Amino acid sequence: MKKVGVAILGLGVVGGGTYKILTEHSQFYKKNHGLEIVVESVLERNKERALSLGIEESKIAGSIAEICSNPEVDIIVEVMGGVEPAKSYVLAALNAGKSVVTSNKELYCKYSHELEKTAKKNHCGLFYEASCVGGVPVIRALTDNLQGNVIKSMLGIINGTTNYILTKMANAGASYVEVLEEAKKLGYAEANPSADVDGYDAVYKLSILSSLAFHTKVPYTEIYREGISEISSVDIAYGKQLGYVIKLLAIGKNTEKGIEVRVHPAFIKVEHPLASVNDSFNAVYLTGDSVEDVMLYGRGAGAKPTGSAIVGDIIYCATHPNFVYSPFENTEKADPATKFIKNFESAYYLRIVAADKAGVLSKVTSILGKYGISMAQVIQAKEGAEGAVPLVIITHETYENSINKAVADINSASEIAKVAAVIRVV
Amino acid sequence: MKKVGVAILGLGVVGGGTYKILTEHSQFYKKNHGLEIVVESVLERNKERALSLGIEESKIAGSIAEICSNPEVDIIVEVMGGVEPAKSYVLAALNAGKSVVTSNKELYCKYSHELEKTAKKNHCGLFYEASCVGGVPVIRALTDNLQGNVIKSMLGIINGTTNYILTKMANAGASYVEVLEEAKKLGYAEANPSADVDGYDAVYKLSILSSLAFHTKVPYTEIYREGISEISSVDIAYGKQLGYVIKLLAIGKNTEKGIEVRVHPAFIKVEHPLASVNDSFNAVYLTGDSVEDVMLYGRGAGAKPTGSAIVGDIIYCATHPNFVYSPFENTEKADPATKFIKNFESAYYLRIVAADKAGVLSKVTSILGKYGISMAQVIQAKEGAEGAVPLVIITHETYENSINKAVADINSASEIAKVAAVIRVV
Repeated sequence: MKKVGVAILGLGVVGGGTYKILTEHSQFYKKNHGLEIVVESVLERNKERALSLGIEESKIAGSIAEICSNPEVDIIVEVMGGVEPAKSYVLAALNAGKSVVTSNKELYCKYSHELEKTAKKNHCGLFYEASCVGGVPVIRALTDNLQGNVIKSMLGIINGTTNYILTKMANAGASYVEVLEEAKKLGYAEANPSADVDGYDAVYKLSILSSLAFHTKVPYTEIYREGISEISSVDIAYGKQLGYVIKLLAIGKNTEKGIEVRVHPAFIKVEHPLASVNDSFNAVYLTGDSVEDVMLYGRGAGAKPTGSAIVGDIIYCATHPNFVYSPFENTEKADPATKFIKNFESAYYLRIVAADKAGVLSKVTSILGKYGISMAQVIQAKEGAEGAVPLVIITHETYENSINKAVADINSASEIAKVAAVIRVV
Repeated sequence: MKKVGVAILGLGVVGGGTYKILTEHSQFYKKNHGLEIVVESVLERNKERALSLGIEESKIAGSIAEICSNPEVDIIVEVMGGVEPAKSYVLAALNAGKSVVTSNKELYCKYSHELEKTAKKNHCGLFYEASCVGGVPVIRALTDNLQGNVIKSMLGIINGTTNYILTKMANAGASYVEVLEEAKKLGYAEANPSADVDGYDAVYKLSILSSLAFHTKVPYTEIYREGISEISSVDIAYGKQLGYVIKLLAIGKNTEKGIEVRVHPAFIKVEHPLASVNDSFNAVYLTGDSVEDVMLYGRGAGAKPTGSAIVGDIIYCATHPNFVYSPFENTEKADPATKFIKNFESAYYLRIVAADKAGVLSKVTSILGKYGISMAQVIQAKEGAEGAVPLVIITHETYENSINKAVADINSASEIAKVAAVIRVV
């Protein structure tokens, strides 16, 4: 029986979940993995929280230094979130020769280079499956299963809060603000929901995943970002009529022209497997040149699903003691040879509200035509309030720059009131 | 740059696909993995096939012994299928100190114990991701990601041929025989389709997957098996009306009563993620006590998707040279303490054809009631040919033995013609 000492930094949702999984499965891991996994120490300012989980007071450490110098600790689990003090603690752990398992997407996305270098120098394991998409095995799929492929594209629903909100808006026809308030009450959204609803969380994860998929560091600063707060239930309803579902998508593409990375709301065809990924479920849809299409689906967050990924990493680390290989080493910055495409190609959904009906469609068509944009689907709805006429268009593929120019032209044409919504279509 | 010599045993669909992936990505693996992967030798009786792939004549080996004694070969890929001579060749490879990557589900399912023991004795790697569900990363998900979970259940669509046939039957309203013939022409079904349509292929895979999931050897002989040849388009249509889709499901459950493993056609609710897995796509839906629900979806067969899994294993093997850990070691037989449940619980779809209408429903209800079976949904259809009245019932959960007895009683009741179809409902 091999004894494995674990320390947990932070007993929030994920830290608490991890502690519970480890203690409840103690006999199971002995029997099936030959591992006696013992939580030897925790770092948590809120002593009551630690005690309420059943952790003995003697195991509550006073400092990271105390944990790093504890010879009983082999693996340090960092589930604090944020950059500091998590970064200093992880570096201290690695420099003390402890392997690290982390769920910290912001830290890993921003400082992977430094963390990996330090782990390598100290011959320690550094595992981060829990940083992206909770219990869904996507990191290891990229590093240990699909590494023989040139990955062409990645489409992900990788934020549970926004998927919950968009699903509820679609099902209930409710507004963003209403559903967000409900989500806060139910604990699906934070009091300050910006990290989720504005897309930052998805951007960090996409940076990590696309770096692995495309074998080149994709800094999060290169990722186009747009949140869901402008999405209205009117557009969700028109989209449905046209055969589309709205999702906050994390998109990575690797083409001959370069790498394209973006997080924004998008309409996706109702038949696409991602369209059925609802509520707080997440999924990543990958296309490789050999494997073709693969989708990995499950709970992207939560105490136990994320804890499952952490415990998976702990067992992997404990049973692969000579782990030194990393299939992709993040550099500090993007390879100078990598081109990031900003003027990407997409189809677009446009909802235009016109002051009166006569000639609007032909005027709009003419402006779109000026920029080489053609229409794939059109709905000219019945008159709205005060004679306003909604005109809904889905374009064929065009360029981001072209649509922006066309929208500006439509908005400045006096006979057309305004473009009320522009949503990309995948 | 580390040089890795590979030998491929068998240049059929998968062997040929693997060879193409390795040669086409040669520079990619050098750049991204620091590996110079060279196919040093092949074993293939059909010399023309080898030459047509561009393999030099000098690399076509005359025997397995020649490959085993070739010092340039590090990893032997076995993609011949079947038990012999594959088994002897794999054992010879391992005993010669070569690591083995195999896609052979029948071999692995039947002789995992002997192969694993031999690999361990010789300190060789033994990898079999390609044996189950092609390019979908399900083996490594079980061994390296979800191993912290007690896996409660597994539902899989793990045979592409049958899923293609059932999807076409549902979409076209065509008969099994018609679609099977079409599938043969298109290369989706073998000339002798029994291994697929009778469920043997799915049984082998379920044996491998459920052994890993439940941490105990699940011999394929313990798996209940029923193929799709009796499925009629009439039942598919009634199922649709009731909100169900038919799939050949591989089911593994781990309950307090024991382990339940079965492969048979089943109706599944149209809202279930597996219901949308169509054509030759495969998926495995796992439920763990921590991770909750996870679905892994993709191409379960084919030259390049299966080749992707093989190449993933080759790269993993080459970059993890100290690989000795196997999270689950198959024993030769099932643990004597393991109980396999044969009289499993399920809901059932029954289509009954009655000679006349009067009193049939109450008679059927009374027989079902005798065995404690209650009805969840009923369709009493319009009269069919020659006054026959189709009566379609979906029961609540009951036992396999109970439904069998009830069906026998219904069939022996003179006023009811016969039970025309019994299909389990998941």
